[in-house]
Amino acid sequence: MEKQKQVILGIDIGGTNVAFGLIGKEEKKILWKDSEPIVQFATAEALADAIAQKMGCEFELVGIGIGAPNGNFYTGSIEFAPNLPWKGIVPLKQIFEAKFGVPVFVSNDANAAACGEFVFGKAGNHPHFLMITLGTGVGSGLFVDGKLVLGSDGMAGELGHFMVVPNGRPCGCGRNGCLEAYASSTALIKQYLEKADNMESITAKDVVDRWQKGDPMATEVMENTIEILGWSLANFVTIHSPSMIVLFGGWAQSGEKVMGKIRHSFESNLLKIYRGKVELVPSLLAGSDAALLGAASLGF
Amino acid sequence: MEKQKQVILGIDIGGTNVAFGLIGKEEKKILWKDSEPIVQFATAEALADAIAQKMGCEFELVGIGIGAPNGNFYTGSIEFAPNLPWKGIVPLKQIFEAKFGVPVFVSNDANAAACGEFVFGKAGNHPHFLMITLGTGVGSGLFVDGKLVLGSDGMAGELGHFMVVPNGRPCGCGRNGCLEAYASSTALIKQYLEKADNMESITAKDVVDRWQKGDPMATEVMENTIEILGWSLANFVTIHSPSMIVLFGGWAQSGEKVMGKIRHSFESNLLKIYRGKVELVPSLLAGSDAALLGAASLGF
Repeated sequence: MEKQKQVILGIDIGGTNVAFGLIGKEEKKILWKDSEPIVQFATAEALADAIAQKMGCEFELVGIGIGAPNGNFYTGSIEFAPNLPWKGIVPLKQIFEAKFGVPVFVSNDANAAACGEFVFGKAGNHPHFLMITLGTGVGSGLFVDGKLVLGSDGMAGELGHFMVVPNGRPCGCGRNGCLEAYASSTALIKQYLEKADNMESITAKDVVDRWQKGDPMATEVMENTIEILGWSLANFVTIHSPSMIVLFGGWAQSGEKVMGKIRHSFESNLLKIYRGKVELVPSLLAGSDAALLGAASLGF
Repeated sequence: MEKQKQVILGIDIGGTNVAFGLIGKEEKKILWKDSEPIVQFATAEALADAIAQKMGCEFELVGIGIGAPNGNFYTGSIEFAPNLPWKGIVPLKQIFEAKFGVPVFVSNDANAAACGEFVFGKAGNHPHFLMITLGTGVGSGLFVDGKLVLGSDGMAGELGHFMVVPNGRPCGCGRNGCLEAYASSTALIKQYLEKADNMESITAKDVVDRWQKGDPMATEVMENTIEILGWSLANFVTIHSPSMIVLFGGWAQSGEKVMGKIRHSFESNLLKIYRGKVELVPSLLAGSDAALLGAASLGF
């Protein structure tokens, strides 16, 4: 009988969909994947059952990585995630280890993205690097000496809630001036709609497109946001002197014009000793499989 | 013949004085110490010779730790320190290893202070902690998983140059709004003198004393500085979720009223998930031996 291929199961739990897939341990490629709306699963146990049934037994499962909002590595649980149908504390690690009998690793989305970049993306040769995710919110993952920093309670890397403007824009966290209140896709949209009187909705992509075409309101929003993001990233370098910063997702990955402007603001705000030393790049993993690979990388 | 006691030589190189001492490896106490004005030594070699002669051979030397401005752990050199008589790159590690034949570890003052707090002070049970030094400048040392974070080039932990106020007060680094431009002793003095028209000099301690006595100018300066410091420390928690922050030196260690006010600003600016979880304390090592113990701790 032929030896079965060893695989890691990656699960990306989002507010709308759950994506899951099997990644070959040797070839580091997705061998199979699927996704379902999260509302189909009343509990995490129901999700585990459904995945077990769908993935079949063609491969030998050796580990599971789960990326989830408010996922805590130390406890293996989701803790009070505001955007999920499952409330309170959900002991994912326990549930999935009981079902599958293999080691399970849980972390939040941004940490999973950082691990993904380290295992599958551009950061493999950068033991000190920083991942910033720009999506509905702003998250971060910090690598020191080739290891993800989890902190004293598993809650490290919340740079989206670094307050970058004293008494600035209100943030969902209840405080003011957080980076997330400026640089998330949601914030980009809000800032544009505040200027555009007769408009009720727009996407972050549209704001970027309008800026590229010279729309003055979009220009004002984008230039302000890019200045604040570049300034913040330059500040973050003083923390652990990374050799690379990766921007993941959202509007920052809409082409070289955007990255070039962010890079300019970043370099001109850097402390002299760091200038010209830090690569600032878009993620290699952008696209639909990024979160899945990120989640799976926790199991590698 | 009795076995000699094993000791670590700690050397604290400052802009004015060099302090050096022998710390027992077992008892972790200073067994002998001395200091000299740095101008007495034309070169680092001359310093090494003088220390060798003074310390004699009563003990068995097993390691050397050196804290120095712009000291780089990876290269073991002082690199272009503006306030030292020795210019350019000074290969301390090489010079002292050649002279003494034991391993030599070099780092900057703030990293040395952080190591000192970990080895001799309050942070021994806090593998994730942050040290902020408030002196002529503001420095920092970051511990993750019980290890000092040095970064990709040995230049990690420059939180004194975290820009905390956009377009704020000018900083010696050439940029604006750095924490150092508000919270260093120098900045405290400058801010007071800007308000006090007829005064030419004052000490940071005097500013604190005047505040305690109700002087309105001192109150304005201190309240603003404490608000900015507390806000900044709350921000820093989002980096690596430390369980302890230690404030070392200068005005922050002038009693419980100051610490209480800093703690209040800190707690009220924290992201909710961190509230009540982070001890904010003054260093245990404050005083004349702190820098010496810090330097020596690099050798432990």
